[in-house]
Amino acid sequence: MDFFFNPQGIALIGATANKLKGGYAIFKNLITGFKGGIYPVNPRYKEIDGIKCFKSVKDVPDPVDLAIIFVPGGYVPAIIKDCADRGIKGVMIEAGGFAESGDKGRKMQDELKAYAKKTGIRLWGPNCMGLVDAVHKKIFSFVTPVIWDELIPGDVSLIVQSGMLSGAFLIDCMSHKIMGISKVCSIGNKMDVNECEILEYLINDPDTKAIGLYLESINNGRRFMEICGTSTKPVVVLLGGKSAGGAAAALSHTASMAVNGAVASGAFAQAGVIEAMDFNEMMDICRSLAAYPDLNVSAAGRVAVLTYTGGAGIVSSDFIDKSGIELAQLSLSTKEKIKSVFPDWMPISNPVDLWPAVERNGADLAYGTAVKAVCEDPGVDAIFVHAFTGGFALNLDMEFLSGHAGRAGKPVFCWVIGTDDAVKKLKTEAIECSVPVFSEISRAVECMDKVFTRKKVLDYRSHDNSNEKQTAKENKNRHDAECLMAVENTGLSKESIDILKSNSGVLDENLSKKILLEYNIKTVKEYFAESPEDAEKIALNLGSKVVMKGIVQGKIHKTEAGLVRIGVNSKNEAIQVFNELKTAMDQKGKILIQEQIKGDMELIAGLMRDPQFGPCVMAGFGGIMAEVLNDSVFGVAPITHFQAIELIKRLKNQELMDGFRGTDPLDRKAFAEILVKLGRLGCDFPQIKEIDINPLIIYKGQPVAVDASVVLF
Amino acid sequence: MDFFFNPQGIALIGATANKLKGGYAIFKNLITGFKGGIYPVNPRYKEIDGIKCFKSVKDVPDPVDLAIIFVPGGYVPAIIKDCADRGIKGVMIEAGGFAESGDKGRKMQDELKAYAKKTGIRLWGPNCMGLVDAVHKKIFSFVTPVIWDELIPGDVSLIVQSGMLSGAFLIDCMSHKIMGISKVCSIGNKMDVNECEILEYLINDPDTKAIGLYLESINNGRRFMEICGTSTKPVVVLLGGKSAGGAAAALSHTASMAVNGAVASGAFAQAGVIEAMDFNEMMDICRSLAAYPDLNVSAAGRVAVLTYTGGAGIVSSDFIDKSGIELAQLSLSTKEKIKSVFPDWMPISNPVDLWPAVERNGADLAYGTAVKAVCEDPGVDAIFVHAFTGGFALNLDMEFLSGHAGRAGKPVFCWVIGTDDAVKKLKTEAIECSVPVFSEISRAVECMDKVFTRKKVLDYRSHDNSNEKQTAKENKNRHDAECLMAVENTGLSKESIDILKSNSGVLDENLSKKILLEYNIKTVKEYFAESPEDAEKIALNLGSKVVMKGIVQGKIHKTEAGLVRIGVNSKNEAIQVFNELKTAMDQKGKILIQEQIKGDMELIAGLMRDPQFGPCVMAGFGGIMAEVLNDSVFGVAPITHFQAIELIKRLKNQELMDGFRGTDPLDRKAFAEILVKLGRLGCDFPQIKEIDINPLIIYKGQPVAVDASVVLF
Repeated sequence: MDFFFNPQGIALIGATANKLKGGYAIFKNLITGFKGGIYPVNPRYKEIDGIKCFKSVKDVPDPVDLAIIFVPGGYVPAIIKDCADRGIKGVMIEAGGFAESGDKGRKMQDELKAYAKKTGIRLWGPNCMGLVDAVHKKIFSFVTPVIWDELIPGDVSLIVQSGMLSGAFLIDCMSHKIMGISKVCSIGNKMDVNECEILEYLINDPDTKAIGLYLESINNGRRFMEICGTSTKPVVVLLGGKSAGGAAAALSHTASMAVNGAVASGAFAQAGVIEAMDFNEMMDICRSLAAYPDLNVSAAGRVAVLTYTGGAGIVSSDFIDKSGIELAQLSLSTKEKIKSVFPDWMPISNPVDLWPAVERNGADLAYGTAVKAVCEDPGVDAIFVHAFTGGFALNLDMEFLSGHAGRAGKPVFCWVIGTDDAVKKLKTEAIECSVPVFSEISRAVECMDKVFTRKKVLDYRSHDNSNEKQTAKENKNRHDAECLMAVENTGLSKESIDILKSNSGVLDENLSKKILLEYNIKTVKEYFAESPEDAEKIALNLGSKVVMKGIVQGKIHKTEAGLVRIGVNSKNEAIQVFNELKTAMDQKGKILIQEQIKGDMELIAGLMRDPQFGPCVMAGFGGIMAEVLNDSVFGVAPITHFQAIELIKRLKNQELMDGFRGTDPLDRKAFAEILVKLGRLGCDFPQIKEIDINPLIIYKGQPVAVDASVVLF
Repeated sequence: MDFFFNPQGIALIGATANKLKGGYAIFKNLITGFKGGIYPVNPRYKEIDGIKCFKSVKDVPDPVDLAIIFVPGGYVPAIIKDCADRGIKGVMIEAGGFAESGDKGRKMQDELKAYAKKTGIRLWGPNCMGLVDAVHKKIFSFVTPVIWDELIPGDVSLIVQSGMLSGAFLIDCMSHKIMGISKVCSIGNKMDVNECEILEYLINDPDTKAIGLYLESINNGRRFMEICGTSTKPVVVLLGGKSAGGAAAALSHTASMAVNGAVASGAFAQAGVIEAMDFNEMMDICRSLAAYPDLNVSAAGRVAVLTYTGGAGIVSSDFIDKSGIELAQLSLSTKEKIKSVFPDWMPISNPVDLWPAVERNGADLAYGTAVKAVCEDPGVDAIFVHAFTGGFALNLDMEFLSGHAGRAGKPVFCWVIGTDDAVKKLKTEAIECSVPVFSEISRAVECMDKVFTRKKVLDYRSHDNSNEKQTAKENKNRHDAECLMAVENTGLSKESIDILKSNSGVLDENLSKKILLEYNIKTVKEYFAESPEDAEKIALNLGSKVVMKGIVQGKIHKTEAGLVRIGVNSKNEAIQVFNELKTAMDQKGKILIQEQIKGDMELIAGLMRDPQFGPCVMAGFGGIMAEVLNDSVFGVAPITHFQAIELIKRLKNQELMDGFRGTDPLDRKAFAEILVKLGRLGCDFPQIKEIDINPLIIYKGQPVAVDASVVLF
């Protein structure tokens, strides 16, 4: 991929001397910043702005490894063939008119993709704005040359599946001194080069500390997750088109197929990716993570708030309260230190309202004393400073602040308002000092929270790596002890494998549960009854009340068909129910008799295959709760026990699992293990399309699969 | 109150020639803008900047009706006495050192408050920044004189219970061209003049179109609600200190007692107040409402999105999908009109991605054609335009846009990014054209949503007024028809009134339900059993299964005490259970036998008294759901039937009430009527402290009070 980012020479096909056209903007951007060879190609010109222009890419001299194409779509295929023949390694196609424009364009795009695969030439785009590298001033894009006035090198890189947005946001956020940028990669329709390859490149890019992606589709969800899941750099994703209206708009924009938002969110969380909802939000999170990619403080995120106005302190507290971080409890010694600059009557608490101290001692001493004190307090993990610029003698010494906090190893965040010029000046200083500054308290708190979320991801990763084997061992012992099965199975019996091979569609619940049981998922006790007398015998063996079901191969909806009877009295009803069910099935089908388990709660667990993310496990609340709570989460298989525990934590109604009204708390390890096993089944047997355990009844804290269906392709 | 806003003459006590002090800033601000008499008071000066200075307020000549005091707190009481003696009507105390500074300050504040009540002099503050009127350039505040460079008159007024914030935000939002301002009233500790009086003044102020309040406490919740509930102008509230940490900070900031956030939110919704969470958000909502205070389009809020970048269209769609507004379905004719500026291959859908049309025809024609088309489409209620400034030849013609949309009576909102200078220029134009412009898509969509929320409030209000009587009549008929009670009661029986008069604490559930029944709240059938034989007779009359309870006067927690037996078999268990319960109560107490109702769902309904809002009704989910969902809402009594219906709609889990798994949907009118009656009980009988109906069982859609307690003071 390096020839896209560091080419030796560039052929610009579609270069023009017409200053109103994109072909001139690209040319101008290239000659302003790029140090290698620049070869405009256009048969209508001998030269452009004094630089020799070539008739065809075939005439361009060595070295040339990158071509940028800015001509109408229909001309592109022939040019790409010329490029391949010339030995050019990569082509950026910035024009549109491909898959996003209808069937004809889609066909052309598909053919080019196949051509790239065959020849090895790499194609970037089409329908994109190319590449901007603000650190090395390489602008391989038609982005308006106004950009040169605003360029701020920085350490955040972006991958944007949209043309205009990448350019527009780049200009906006640099002009407003929101942040500097390393690279912006606009990837459009992603016909060949996609987000995964560029993401990998940026993770290894020494100029990049954090990466943000705006995506409308994910080409290979599993590959994307692998990259993010081991990334040493924070990754933030804004996935557009999650709603019905948004998905329709995405289809017409970059010809993207909708992603299942719930599955994607689960995959992101599992891989430690941080999700954003809006563009500025994504960039705000990125610059915060780039400033503090790794922290050496507690992941609890105990924040000291230093303000000049009580009202902002109160609102900050309200937002912190709703987030994953918390207000720090200042130590007595810290309070004593801060008290030295305050009038006597003022008690010190967090948030620290510095205004009385500023009035008495000036802003430098008041802020300085408080910053030093909280930096020294081991109970403080982060500092949130409120500043006003352009009046009230409140200007903040950004260098002092970042220096002190930096030496203490504590992240500092600023909220600033004031006059436009003074705010801009402070933001520029802040960019130099790598201190994230915000105009809204809510956003500042959100970004602090995300920095600590990233800290938790890193802590979690190291924990998962070191403990996974131990956990697996513990699980085995636990299962043995419970005599669920004498030996830990690593796969299915020959008989079950034959069933998977020789069937298609829905397996009946008894066969389905047999398969689950062989993967150590505890199922309800059940037997088929061959005759009414057999039914009575089985029922009496299973307890005073049993469940009886009529099983017809290939049908799932037994309840709706009236083939489920609950609470059958073993003593005197089993024979009658046997006959009734048989009649209801026209004497076909089989009669299954189950132990009746009255649980404390119903969960559901399952396996499905997602077009982007492959086999995924699902966990959620079942029964009545499923309809009421709509609370389920996804993970991408295979999933470790540790990841499954984390997955369960993402369910919203945690308190339901902790035991209420005197019931036992759910054995989370046992539930996690079921998810691990479902994931393994999905990975081990590609012929399984989906598995649905519903309900998974929780009895005395232990999950038991009471009904299940395995669906084959 | 008008002497605070339009004084004839102002005495400034604490005026100083020291340019670093607040007393000079106030003086400077007064002489720069105020046209009436200005009388500095300070015995140390003969004149300040050429204006005569007085020894005492007593020496100040007529006319003078307002005094501004900026001296340390301890000197304030004597000065106020002088002011009262001099016949001054209002005093603004801007200095701190009162209730927020401890017991001594609180005592002084209380004494001044009593003095104001006695003499009739009105006191504004203390611990505040006074008043800024940007339209008439009256700055009665120590806010830094930098404000004069930034002043933008506008139509939003603010009431801010914080000193620094009011000044700082005023400067920030004007300097950043976010909006113009009419009046900012900084009210600090609110010792005498409070938010209610100022709010009333601003509702009648011709220069104000929308009002925003930052509050840390509410002095008189019921009065505040009355004002907001009939306000012809939109009111937006940011209530700080809702969290535990925030409430602690509020106490030390303006000596404010915490408000029950859930009750306040319910009261706000009932009164049509729009809530904000952050400062900029509050101002963004205010300026949007000021631009479009009343709409003549459908309250559905069908939005047409015109963008230059598909990505922003997608993200807009995603946000609109999650909000209370929706994407418009463009008519065929609209699509035809827009299609005229597009290349042939481009299908038109909403959001409209104008980029291909801009490339072909330029921004003016592309945007112009689309704006005209959606303005003419009766299926479009609002227009969301995306703009980029400072490049790409995309500059938006704000006058054309606002003119066209204005004539069509459709609100238009802009999202704009681009270079700093160009964005600022566009924002300035937008302020002149009264078009709300935003830098974040999420905020723009939120503000559109709030404009339509306000529209719904106004629709709802007119509906409530016109239908309340009709609804009351219908209800009476319905109740009659159901034979709940032959006559509509307007109050309690003499017997029940005697019970309320002669008791205190908890009434037993039978007495409690008797009172509810007299207010037409349907209760479960129940009788006291005097003997075991009596118990058996009652049980048999009530059905095959009954509930038996041991009732001990003054105790509520019967279940925990083991005094509730469910599913008692009337035939053979009633006598035994009677004896067991008697034994468990040491032969004291009484035995109550109830019909056993197996309902589809449990709700709760109640009445409580809030320190700020008085008698409030509460509705929520009961039983297991209460613990799981944590879903309850409050309303302020008395509550109309229509308001009660709206209150029920604010419960999050609406689908639970619409009938699921084959159960009947809840009779919402019957549930609403219970809330109306609970509210009336609370208003009619001040001796009732609280009422708790739990559970209110829903059987075949009808609510029945199965257990209840009335608690007296």
